[in-house]
Amino acid sequence: MEEKLKELKQVMGTLADLGHATAALGWDQETYMPPGGVETRGNALATLGRMAQEIGTDEKVGKLIEELEPWAAEQDPDSDEARLVVVTRRGYDKAVKVPPEMVAERAMLATQANAAWREARQKSDYTIFEPFMEKIVDFNQRYAELFKPFDHAYDVLLDDYEPMMKTADVKKIFADIRPQQVKLIEAVANAEQVDDSVLFKFYPEQDQLAMGEEIIKAFGYDFNRGRQDKVHHPFASNFGYGDQRITYRVDENFFNTYIFSIMHEAGHAMYEQGIPKSLSRTALYGGTSLAVHESQSRLWENLVGRSLPFWEWYYPKLQARFPEQTKGVSLETFYKAVNKVEPSFIRVESDEATYNLHIMLRLEIEIGLLEGSIKVSELPEAWNDRFEEYLGIRPKNDAEGCLQDIHWSFGLFGYFSTYALGNLISAQLWEKINEDIPDLDDQTRSGEFSALLGWLNEKLHAHGSKFYPQDIVQRITGSKINGDLYIRYLKDKFSGIYGL
Amino acid sequence: MEEKLKELKQVMGTLADLGHATAALGWDQETYMPPGGVETRGNALATLGRMAQEIGTDEKVGKLIEELEPWAAEQDPDSDEARLVVVTRRGYDKAVKVPPEMVAERAMLATQANAAWREARQKSDYTIFEPFMEKIVDFNQRYAELFKPFDHAYDVLLDDYEPMMKTADVKKIFADIRPQQVKLIEAVANAEQVDDSVLFKFYPEQDQLAMGEEIIKAFGYDFNRGRQDKVHHPFASNFGYGDQRITYRVDENFFNTYIFSIMHEAGHAMYEQGIPKSLSRTALYGGTSLAVHESQSRLWENLVGRSLPFWEWYYPKLQARFPEQTKGVSLETFYKAVNKVEPSFIRVESDEATYNLHIMLRLEIEIGLLEGSIKVSELPEAWNDRFEEYLGIRPKNDAEGCLQDIHWSFGLFGYFSTYALGNLISAQLWEKINEDIPDLDDQTRSGEFSALLGWLNEKLHAHGSKFYPQDIVQRITGSKINGDLYIRYLKDKFSGIYGL
Repeated sequence: MEEKLKELKQVMGTLADLGHATAALGWDQETYMPPGGVETRGNALATLGRMAQEIGTDEKVGKLIEELEPWAAEQDPDSDEARLVVVTRRGYDKAVKVPPEMVAERAMLATQANAAWREARQKSDYTIFEPFMEKIVDFNQRYAELFKPFDHAYDVLLDDYEPMMKTADVKKIFADIRPQQVKLIEAVANAEQVDDSVLFKFYPEQDQLAMGEEIIKAFGYDFNRGRQDKVHHPFASNFGYGDQRITYRVDENFFNTYIFSIMHEAGHAMYEQGIPKSLSRTALYGGTSLAVHESQSRLWENLVGRSLPFWEWYYPKLQARFPEQTKGVSLETFYKAVNKVEPSFIRVESDEATYNLHIMLRLEIEIGLLEGSIKVSELPEAWNDRFEEYLGIRPKNDAEGCLQDIHWSFGLFGYFSTYALGNLISAQLWEKINEDIPDLDDQTRSGEFSALLGWLNEKLHAHGSKFYPQDIVQRITGSKINGDLYIRYLKDKFSGIYGL
Repeated sequence: MEEKLKELKQVMGTLADLGHATAALGWDQETYMPPGGVETRGNALATLGRMAQEIGTDEKVGKLIEELEPWAAEQDPDSDEARLVVVTRRGYDKAVKVPPEMVAERAMLATQANAAWREARQKSDYTIFEPFMEKIVDFNQRYAELFKPFDHAYDVLLDDYEPMMKTADVKKIFADIRPQQVKLIEAVANAEQVDDSVLFKFYPEQDQLAMGEEIIKAFGYDFNRGRQDKVHHPFASNFGYGDQRITYRVDENFFNTYIFSIMHEAGHAMYEQGIPKSLSRTALYGGTSLAVHESQSRLWENLVGRSLPFWEWYYPKLQARFPEQTKGVSLETFYKAVNKVEPSFIRVESDEATYNLHIMLRLEIEIGLLEGSIKVSELPEAWNDRFEEYLGIRPKNDAEGCLQDIHWSFGLFGYFSTYALGNLISAQLWEKINEDIPDLDDQTRSGEFSALLGWLNEKLHAHGSKFYPQDIVQRITGSKINGDLYIRYLKDKFSGIYGL
């Protein structure tokens, strides 16, 4: 059996190497690739995707898994080996359902659609992107069909990002929290507004970058195994063991843009920097799902980065770095400023209280497009109408409306709801962390984050993707994913800030 | 036959895609990869190399070539199709001789040895690199053995970079020019020395980069299909159609370092930017050999970039950009400064008159290591002794001695002599260009380079690697590679500068 396991790991090592190349090409496409390279890049990504599909779905692999399963069943069910076989089986069964032509089609479509999206976004003209969006919706419809039978076609897409999660469960969780979030926003709207003018001073790019580096280094992001680069739409990329990169954008006239996004991406990257080398080059290396991933990024961005203890530590340093900009602004004013609740157009810059509403809107649109109840040509209208309904404001153009996110341009459907689920999980973890580290706030006040990162490393990161999201959340917190603690967190925090 | 050709092109397309990924990973390794990523990168490059080898040496490919050969023999022998079959056959026959394990070994060795070389160079300590150099020499000895019988083991290595070229031919060419170059250097040494103090003023990095961009854009390097990034050891990288990147290093206290190297790398990149899309994703896409490649980089760097007409155009712009640094320095003084002949330790910064001697030294050492007449442990001594003998000066440490070049750290043996051959070819082309464009100097004086680049595009670049180096040089200039015109060029130029 050891020989069989070794064979399986060899195949996985090859897949990891192709994944590494794909990650590097994807990262380069966003950071440094010249415009003329689009077509060649598309060809290469399509080929790498096709090869990974061929290798990963080879009958030989299926046979190896089959031979290993009886042996794995006798191991400790939580052991790396047992989980490796289970998780690999799941991936294999899913992969063999997708014909190689469709894998290549998706890769090529992503490259072309992304290029069109860039142009469309720059010109704020959805019609440039529309023909590609047609193809993307059509592709996802055909993709879902491959996995029949299902309760809902959207389940198929969701499962690619959130293993074992169902559309009905997500809808239920969202339905539970929605009225409470809406009520909270209404209460805030009727309260005295906070002064966030300090955020709109001029903060030079180089100084912001130095600040960000200082903060995420303190968090524990390891620059020896990573780096930060400038992009249009920030992301974290896992190149494999020893190389987890993050990206940023920066607005010299709005403080929040850079700093909260770099904390966010560092949160993602620290998850993967915390996965042990023993799991590398296998299906267990990497975060277990997008929602769990997002719980890490949102935890560092919001529960740490937008907390009062954090700014008790960092605000004096900020004042030293930006004396002119922060002149006469108290810690309390600054803390309230970075937590200002205000419906805005851009999801990634929206506050904690409104964020999930951005997600619910996207989820409904994706389901509508997939079901055909929303036409691709009507997307801007469908977006703007819902936006106005939920958040009370209407986007003025496509760039701040339906073109703001990069995801669809890569063909990614079923992805967005994981962002909201991540928020919920972060609050569930936070409760547990504060039980286990009673002086966490004091540590934060002195810029000390090693106990926090150590806890996350031990409880979550160390497991890589051994356990599915609902299972790992249950193991750590004792409950399945739900919004109770997140709603309580929001209410506590914003009652304080807005004196509700 | 059309079907067979299409099949062959599909295989080549896949190889081109793997080559694209390999180029991107190699470029990233030199530009942006964090130190922690070394091992993962090595794994990935080894896998990509192994896959390319497997696909390229598949019996199916051999059969396709065999089936296409009778048909190709009936085509115009200069047609793309006929040459495609011939060139692919040559590559296939070479590739099948190398076992897959050795391909993977080379890739892994290159990654590890390169990391060791970086450290060794930084600490100027050859002993850090020595164990890897042992492995590299051993590898190249075993590699040469695969291609028995041969006139000389070194022929095998040379042929990988310079198709069909023999060690004996190179030795003969070098023997012809060596006494003449030595004589010229002696004459210069006895002449009145030029004042190059202007080069050692402070030139801020950002201003240098802006200058470089202006100049290479004027040459015709297309930034829409390329970019320049900072590295330790500059190179050009061909990612495939539409993406030819160049890299640089910069010394704010020595003018020559950046500008001549960026002209050089742009010369390489413009060669590949000039290859038509119709040849892309085949064995004919890319420069035909390293020497012909080098003829392009050296032509732009030296025959254009170090010429008087060029500085007649650019010196006023340089004065405007760097008024303090160039104050009181005449065009003539500046022109002489950038052409100063002086034996120095670093090949890439050596002048035109001494450059080839750096190469001859390396050629002898490589042959000695391969034959076993020089031991790896003795390399620093062997290097320094020869250096003193040829150039009259002795390196003070390993960093400015045998650790200066990156090539060996990648396992590249047989590569260096192509640099000197490139110099010779550039002079052969230059003679022909001046016949065909009689007012070339006047065009250069007005910063107009489109006729020159157009000539190179038409006569050389358009052919990609259809014709082997000796053949393409013969086709364009009427002679095989030889040093007569280069020696004449050196004598004319430096007689003028030094009043010999």
